[in-house]
Amino acid sequence: VTVSDLTERELIKRIAERLQPPPGWLTVGIGDDAAVVEPERNRLEVLSVDAIVEGIHFDRRFTPPGAIGHRALAVNLSDLAAMGAAPRLALLSFVLPPALLLDDFDALVSGLAALALRHKLHVVGGNLTRSPGPLMIDVTVVGTAKRRQVLTRAGARPGDAIYVTGSIGGAAAGLEMLRHTASAASEAKHPPGTDLRAQGLERCAIRYLYPEPRVRMGLALGRNRVASACMDLSDGLADGVRQIAEASGVGIIVDAAAIPVDQEARAWFDAQGGDALTSAMTGGDDYELVFTSPPRGNGRLRAASRGIDVAVTRIGICTKAHDLILRRAGEGPPTDEAIPSGYTHFR
Amino acid sequence: VTVSDLTERELIKRIAERLQPPPGWLTVGIGDDAAVVEPERNRLEVLSVDAIVEGIHFDRRFTPPGAIGHRALAVNLSDLAAMGAAPRLALLSFVLPPALLLDDFDALVSGLAALALRHKLHVVGGNLTRSPGPLMIDVTVVGTAKRRQVLTRAGARPGDAIYVTGSIGGAAAGLEMLRHTASAASEAKHPPGTDLRAQGLERCAIRYLYPEPRVRMGLALGRNRVASACMDLSDGLADGVRQIAEASGVGIIVDAAAIPVDQEARAWFDAQGGDALTSAMTGGDDYELVFTSPPRGNGRLRAASRGIDVAVTRIGICTKAHDLILRRAGEGPPTDEAIPSGYTHFR
Repeated sequence: VTVSDLTERELIKRIAERLQPPPGWLTVGIGDDAAVVEPERNRLEVLSVDAIVEGIHFDRRFTPPGAIGHRALAVNLSDLAAMGAAPRLALLSFVLPPALLLDDFDALVSGLAALALRHKLHVVGGNLTRSPGPLMIDVTVVGTAKRRQVLTRAGARPGDAIYVTGSIGGAAAGLEMLRHTASAASEAKHPPGTDLRAQGLERCAIRYLYPEPRVRMGLALGRNRVASACMDLSDGLADGVRQIAEASGVGIIVDAAAIPVDQEARAWFDAQGGDALTSAMTGGDDYELVFTSPPRGNGRLRAASRGIDVAVTRIGICTKAHDLILRRAGEGPPTDEAIPSGYTHFR
Repeated sequence: VTVSDLTERELIKRIAERLQPPPGWLTVGIGDDAAVVEPERNRLEVLSVDAIVEGIHFDRRFTPPGAIGHRALAVNLSDLAAMGAAPRLALLSFVLPPALLLDDFDALVSGLAALALRHKLHVVGGNLTRSPGPLMIDVTVVGTAKRRQVLTRAGARPGDAIYVTGSIGGAAAGLEMLRHTASAASEAKHPPGTDLRAQGLERCAIRYLYPEPRVRMGLALGRNRVASACMDLSDGLADGVRQIAEASGVGIIVDAAAIPVDQEARAWFDAQGGDALTSAMTGGDDYELVFTSPPRGNGRLRAASRGIDVAVTRIGICTKAHDLILRRAGEGPPTDEAIPSGYTHFR
């Protein structure tokens, strides 16, 4: 059974069945021309949209439908986290190949719904349409934040320290592992996944497949007003550092030794014969937060991140000079090099 | 020059240059992780999303880029109109084939921006990503309405009259004309458009290419509280009548002779040997409004539509029995038939 065996309305019903009951502030929900919601009092609204596209952002050979649904929402929640906003609602726009199996459609919706539930986000509406080829999911999210708690990219000042949450490189390594395994499996004609587990490489693959947006950390950074600038690492740490520096009008010196490269990822990149640090810094999909904090804000930062199970690592400092420097300390004097250039979508 | 010759940021800059200056209520605009807006006081928010996809919703052989941009926003404005909401803001999600000409990209954005300007809607953010094939544009709109002015599909009562704005069938006929001309042109190797004008068929084609969302009329119907139910005709009048009847729990009798079929469209459908009324009722893309109004609300309806240059035609009545009937009056007694079934996306 494929999605083309059902009507649009039947598919919408299957989505609604997988969602939480509608909240009181939703005046008109799924099924009318538009959703109607009551705004939250004394809050600003934070809006973001992000599409994931088959063949560009995911490969259906090794990305299970549940992971596609998860990712479509996670990338948007990560944008809200980067602004210090609390998730509130989402609109889903699905562009579906008619041959998509109904089981896969259901699993995709369930993956998205499970993440929504964990972050108390309500799906209030959306749209379904046919695709002439690739599967695409476009999600719009709306969150809320108090005026003084909004985090932008533009507030870093010279002397601020720069931090990153969690570890980096894991998702990029996981994607490479999945690609290798999928190629090997298609040659050996046995299903992907088996090999991966045998190699003990499951953790990085899961990091790639199920990115965990740092919503609680973003909220805490906004509430405690401990971050002067913040963004999420959808396109890698090198890109994140560059964006904050440009938006804030500062330079940044990153201490290479301090960068929390995922240990398994480092081993993987080393084994591939590349430079693990560069691969980790330019690899995307980590969805960690990078943020800056004024000097002597260490106590407030510790207080903000208390009870949140995510590491926070200081990786460098903002400077008056506008250079972006990666500083490697060795046995001799430290050597400076330019921060590798980030990922650009269209060039 | 194609979009792939530019970076994502350069493309975003080209979009921003074509937009109105940002309004005061936009706290954080294009360029950060998300947009931040101040909500409007004492208003509900009305949210909708709609994607248009190359090969499904438009054919680039005969749809100029400006018309693609226009349509992407128009279909969403039409949803706001159907809810009685005033347009406020939009987020744009573009999925672009790398080979898209930069001139076409600019024209597409300009087509969208021109319609946004006319409806005082601000583009506050969005996302750009590559497509592995088709061009897709997904637009999210947010409008506002006072609580008691929101129009849903569910408020029609037995005895209410049912109305439609403007005329129907023009867009469906226009699409057929454009298809015929494009096929003829590709055989004769001369550019489309020429033939169309020679045949005097330009008006229907323009109706298809540049649908005019009935925003002012929707607002007036909501403000005057003259409509008990309302929706827009994205999928045709037959579908609209059916949806209002189902959501409201009523039946509807439509007077076939009263239906305002576009005159040129009727001539076209007749010439093609089909049933013009059925073609007009099941054809999509008209983006007119269909609405119901309580009996003896005629004076208020006239007052509401004063100064709005769109015809409003009474086409039938809501009934207690749940049947959907198309009544044809002739020389003998009237004959009743079932309303043709509407367009369904996935079956």
